[in-house]
Amino acid sequence: MPTASSILAVGSIALDAVKTPKESVIDVLGGSASFFTLAASHFAPVRLIAVVGDDLPAQYLRLLEQRPIDLAGLQRRPGKTFRWSAEYSGTYLETRQTLRTDLNVFADFHPHLPESVRASRFVFLGNINPGLQHEVLDQVTQAEFIACDTISLWIETESPSLERLYRRVHCVMLSYEEALQFTGQPSLIGAVRQIRDLGPRALIIKRGEYGSLLFTSEGVFAAPARLLEHSQVKDPTGAGDAFAGGFMGALARGGRTDEQALRAAMLYGNVLGALAVTDFSVHGMTDVTLADLETGAEELRAMVSLDGVWRR
Amino acid sequence: MPTASSILAVGSIALDAVKTPKESVIDVLGGSASFFTLAASHFAPVRLIAVVGDDLPAQYLRLLEQRPIDLAGLQRRPGKTFRWSAEYSGTYLETRQTLRTDLNVFADFHPHLPESVRASRFVFLGNINPGLQHEVLDQVTQAEFIACDTISLWIETESPSLERLYRRVHCVMLSYEEALQFTGQPSLIGAVRQIRDLGPRALIIKRGEYGSLLFTSEGVFAAPARLLEHSQVKDPTGAGDAFAGGFMGALARGGRTDEQALRAAMLYGNVLGALAVTDFSVHGMTDVTLADLETGAEELRAMVSLDGVWRR
Repeated sequence: MPTASSILAVGSIALDAVKTPKESVIDVLGGSASFFTLAASHFAPVRLIAVVGDDLPAQYLRLLEQRPIDLAGLQRRPGKTFRWSAEYSGTYLETRQTLRTDLNVFADFHPHLPESVRASRFVFLGNINPGLQHEVLDQVTQAEFIACDTISLWIETESPSLERLYRRVHCVMLSYEEALQFTGQPSLIGAVRQIRDLGPRALIIKRGEYGSLLFTSEGVFAAPARLLEHSQVKDPTGAGDAFAGGFMGALARGGRTDEQALRAAMLYGNVLGALAVTDFSVHGMTDVTLADLETGAEELRAMVSLDGVWRR
Repeated sequence: MPTASSILAVGSIALDAVKTPKESVIDVLGGSASFFTLAASHFAPVRLIAVVGDDLPAQYLRLLEQRPIDLAGLQRRPGKTFRWSAEYSGTYLETRQTLRTDLNVFADFHPHLPESVRASRFVFLGNINPGLQHEVLDQVTQAEFIACDTISLWIETESPSLERLYRRVHCVMLSYEEALQFTGQPSLIGAVRQIRDLGPRALIIKRGEYGSLLFTSEGVFAAPARLLEHSQVKDPTGAGDAFAGGFMGALARGGRTDEQALRAAMLYGNVLGALAVTDFSVHGMTDVTLADLETGAEELRAMVSLDGVWRR
């Protein structure tokens, strides 16, 4: 078993307010970097690049400090932490209405990478303004596998910057709807072709309850999603970031990024994504053991197993 | 290679009128039995139980006669053949509006199984009134694997009869939406549990572009769907029946119904379902060779391959 490589991760840390038909929570830990680092840290050390205000409850910082997460790149600024609120509806809470976004200390944030983390081999650019994702890339020196995520807002407002970003990374992650939005294509195949033409080795399309798809030069891999009861889905916030954390964590743990490693990592991504939605904030992912995650990945593997089936 | 078993199949033969945003066709060959038998006959002989009027164009009968399809159970009645018309819309033509259904000779149809076909090992009860599906079951003598399909209309109007049917068969096929409709459950897992409690060994949930799921006592199998450009989707009519034909055909060809055989058959089902939508009427499935179908199944197998990935 090789020692896991560290993952450099940039993204937001937020205080979220989330409302669902059954429950509401206020000022809980959220943000793309929170979900990503807590998911990834089950598998590999994470070096976090983010900013928080002086109002972030100490218990939330402790949640991060308790795990193999390096906070040297975490900026602490006077003022309020980034705040975000949303309301969900639908059987699987699949419909989201963003109610409010207050950038606060995020408004002037510029990532600064301590010298100690610039040589990271694995880099994850979580959802923040694409300009800031570029600023991180400008500072890394030995990245071997860079993945990035985004949201609909940046596709709408920063599409040229995203396109430049996609030319600089190895792996692009988008939801099905975001891929169509970014390309203007009516169907997935056309969108995939257009994004892959920008150069990334891997393109991951997230399809929620229908699992996720990996596109590389070696073909397509359809990773199944864990089937959840609607009553198990409490809060969809952060599912995509948790997916990214499971995926990058599994890659960094093995230190490989070949096709087989990417396919296995997709299963871990889907396991963490499904866990994230089973509770508010990051709690669906924090009380699980590595053994639980292995069992989850094995269950997904069994869902696509054709062992002993093919006889040609 | 064992000799393929014959499949007994009951269902409708129709003259369809189909309208899409780009094209329209009138009086083309349709109906659940047409799609099923033409799909299944790539793999195994089919014994067709159905009724047609005296207006069915001879060329459509020839399409069936040219293949290993036994027409001894096809009733030819004075009057008009069953007619159905619908209009599709949406990127993938995913929205259907049924415009008209004229039962015609189907109104007095009662399936009569010639003595020669009653001993079939594989039986498919295609979409018709559940009462008629029961009548077929009453006449078969040695069925080892009985599968049935239905549509939303019968779930709405004949739910008790369907429930009795599901207690008599080995394999139930439903679309995702139909499974929720039949059970009144809000999520798939609950619906699956409720239907499996009725007794069928296998339950197949069809999810269109997201593939299909097989539920048995051994677990869940997620069969991926072929990814299609929206421009490749010409007419979704019959996709479910074609799926069933590919699935049952592959089973009957091998003569086995164990878990491995069911999983492999799911891939052939998805191959035929995807072919059916690429042209109007049955034409998407008729001009392909068995080698094409093997290639298609191999492509789907590759989409879920974890060969050499798992190292535990």
